[in-house]
Formats: sequence, C-alpha cells, structure tokens
Amino acid sequence: MRLTLHTYWRSSASWRVRIGLGLKGLPWEPSYVHLLNDGGQHRGEAHRARNPMAQVPVLEVVEEDGRVLHLSQSLAILEFLEERFSGQGAPLLPQHPALRARARMLAELVNAGIQPLQNLSVTQRLKELGVDDAAWVRDFVTRGMTALEAQAGDDAFLVGDAPTIADCCLVPQLYSCRRFGVDVEAFPRLRAIEARCDALPAFAAARPEVQGDAG
Amino acid sequence: MRLTLHTYWRSSASWRVRIGLGLKGLPWEPSYVHLLNDGGQHRGEAHRARNPMAQVPVLEVVEEDGRVLHLSQSLAILEFLEERFSGQGAPLLPQHPALRARARMLAELVNAGIQPLQNLSVTQRLKELGVDDAAWVRDFVTRGMTALEAQAGDDAFLVGDAPTIADCCLVPQLYSCRRFGVDVEAFPRLRAIEARCDALPAFAAARPEVQGDAG
Repeated sequence: MRLTLHTYWRSSASWRVRIGLGLKGLPWEPSYVHLLNDGGQHRGEAHRARNPMAQVPVLEVVEEDGRVLHLSQSLAILEFLEERFSGQGAPLLPQHPALRARARMLAELVNAGIQPLQNLSVTQRLKELGVDDAAWVRDFVTRGMTALEAQAGDDAFLVGDAPTIADCCLVPQLYSCRRFGVDVEAFPRLRAIEARCDALPAFAAARPEVQGDAG
Repeated sequence: MRLTLHTYWRSSASWRVRIGLGLKGLPWEPSYVHLLNDGGQHRGEAHRARNPMAQVPVLEVVEEDGRVLHLSQSLAILEFLEERFSGQGAPLLPQHPALRARARMLAELVNAGIQPLQNLSVTQRLKELGVDDAAWVRDFVTRGMTALEAQAGDDAFLVGDAPTIADCCLVPQLYSCRRFGVDVEAFPRLRAIEARCDALPAFAAARPEVQGDAG
C-alpha cells in the first residue's frame, strides 16, 4: 500500500492528518495543493476529481492490487488510519467506549464547531460581503475554544495520558487562534496540553513551517 | 443503562441521532431544549452544564452504576452507539474499512462541510451584520450538496444496501435544503436515497413533525 497526502502546509485539517500519520508511524508522500496560487489549486479540475468539495486534505491510498481510494474529511481519514493500521504505531483513540466518545466529541468540537467558521472559503465570502472577517473569526473561535477549555480536564492530553484524535485537532487550532488574534491566555489547560504535544516527534514533524510547501 | 436525548425537533443534528437510536432499536427518553423560546434554552445554565458549546443534541447516558455521561456532537454520539451496542439492531457503519471510511467521509461532508454554515448561531449573526443570510445559506448548502451528489453512487443508500451514518446526515440535510429554498431537483441520486430512507420505520419516527416538541 502507498499513501499520498494532498496537503497544504497551513491547512489545519491537513495538519491533523499529518500528525495522525506520524503517530501511527506510517510512511507517506506529500502532494502539494496551494490554496492561494493559481486562484486556488484546490479549485482546479485535478483536485476536484479527488474531492468534489475542493478541499484539502485528501489521502490517496493505492492498494497492493492497484485500487485507488481518495479519502477526504480529516476525521474520517484519521478513523481510517486507526482501523486499517490498528496494530501499528500509537493508537489514535483510547480503549474504553466512553473515552473514545469523549475523544471524538472534543475532536468534533473543533472539526465541526470551530474550523468551518474560519475556513478560507468563509473568510473570503465575508470579505466580499464587506464584513469584518477577522472579528467574525475571533468571535466564533473564542466561543468554541472557551467551550473546549471548559471540557479539558487534568489529564496530560485532552483524553488520558496519550494523544488522540482530539489532540490532533487541538494543536492546529491553537496555531489558528494565534494567527487570527484570539487571546490564548484564556486557555491554560489547552496550552499545557499543547506543550506536551509539541515535545513529541510526530507533532514536531507535522508543523506547517517544516513542510516542503511552506512559504 | 438509561438514555435521554436532549433534543430539538428541527435541529438536524438531533434528528441524525434520533435516526441512529431508531436503527439500533434503542429505547430513549426525550428532553426538550427549545432553541427559540426563553431566548434559547440551549444557552441556559442547565444546558451549558451538559454541553459548554450550548448546542443540541446531547445524549445523557446513565450507567448501571449511576455514572452519568453527557455526550455532544452528533457523529461522536452515533459512533458511541455503534460501539457500545455493537450487537444490537442494525449496524450504523459497513464492515469493510474502505467503506467505513466512505460512510464517515460523506457524513462529515454534511456535518463539517455544510451544516455549520447554516447553523442558527451563524444565521443570527449574519442578520445582525445586515447580511442576506438566506442567500449565504443557499450558496454554501448548494456547494456542499452538489459535492455530495457527485459522490453518491448507484447503491441503494449512500454507502451500500443499508443505511449508515451518512444517511443519518443526508435526510435531515435535504429537509434543511427545502426549508432554505435550495433547489433539490439538482440532486436526483440523493433524493432517490432519501425516498428509500423515508420508507424505513427508524427514519419515519425521527422526523421533526412527529416529535413531542414540534410546533
């Protein structure tokens, strides 16, 4: 099997998958899709054939028998990696059903509750409408991160003593917070978890600035 | 174990979970959270204690030993039901990893790619900003549903010959389309799948208009 990730260095959803691939210890090739160049390469025909939603990331899986799978949606990709490579690397979910549910809940809080409202297509539309997109993003992101901080406990990571899909979502989201001017001082538990993640090689290798397409 | 769903009849995310509970054949009690009355009961202290994001649905699980779990985020709840009651009722995911990934991908396309942009908190904010929220919703929803239609195949349901989490998301989303004036004629495959879902008791019992809080 061969894994290619269609990715953009600063896309937080691509970043989540890069972390997951690293935690599972899976080798992968990058294919860069630039969201700003050429009017947005994600909107081009080649990428739309992989993902009609015209978004990154897309994980391209080439099976031994030649079959090709194009998977989009970062959490669906992470669940796939966890199931398909269950014995490999670190698990991306805890064992117990209640803790698995908690990890998925916190991951979705970022994935469905925060990130869609700061997405490039949304901020571009807001600009076209003459709306202050920076204020919009700050408001919605602050609301979501405040709820996430309220649900973070005293564990080393968001759920338990090892990173899960929830932490794969947290770290890129904190980067976005700083980028969009959201005050992260209000999230001490989340920042403490982030510091523990930053110390792990899988998280370090996934950071935007060390990607081949960083610019 | 006792299951209580904090729900609102017209919330598409609550509706997804109602379908899932029905497909699994699980008994549950409704607890109604009205999104418009009392300035939004979801914003009240009682509901925030269950879910700091102040959203529905929340599944309240009371275990035999008295422990209480409050689960939010519809897809995390559906995954929990599937894992916790794996032998009961109909499975909410296919067997094969690639098909499971496809079901999750299409569910997330609705959950993260469409619904957050038509959410009540978003349309209320757009109104405050003097933006035509109906046009906004139509644009983003049409874009998402067009991508979903493009990814629907010739299966009876979105993935295979039985409903999955993807269909749990599809049916409420098509209802939202009609409510927001999105032309569903452009989605013949999705409408054919919807018709097959509508014929199933679990889908019929989950519809907004038959809920106790419908008004």
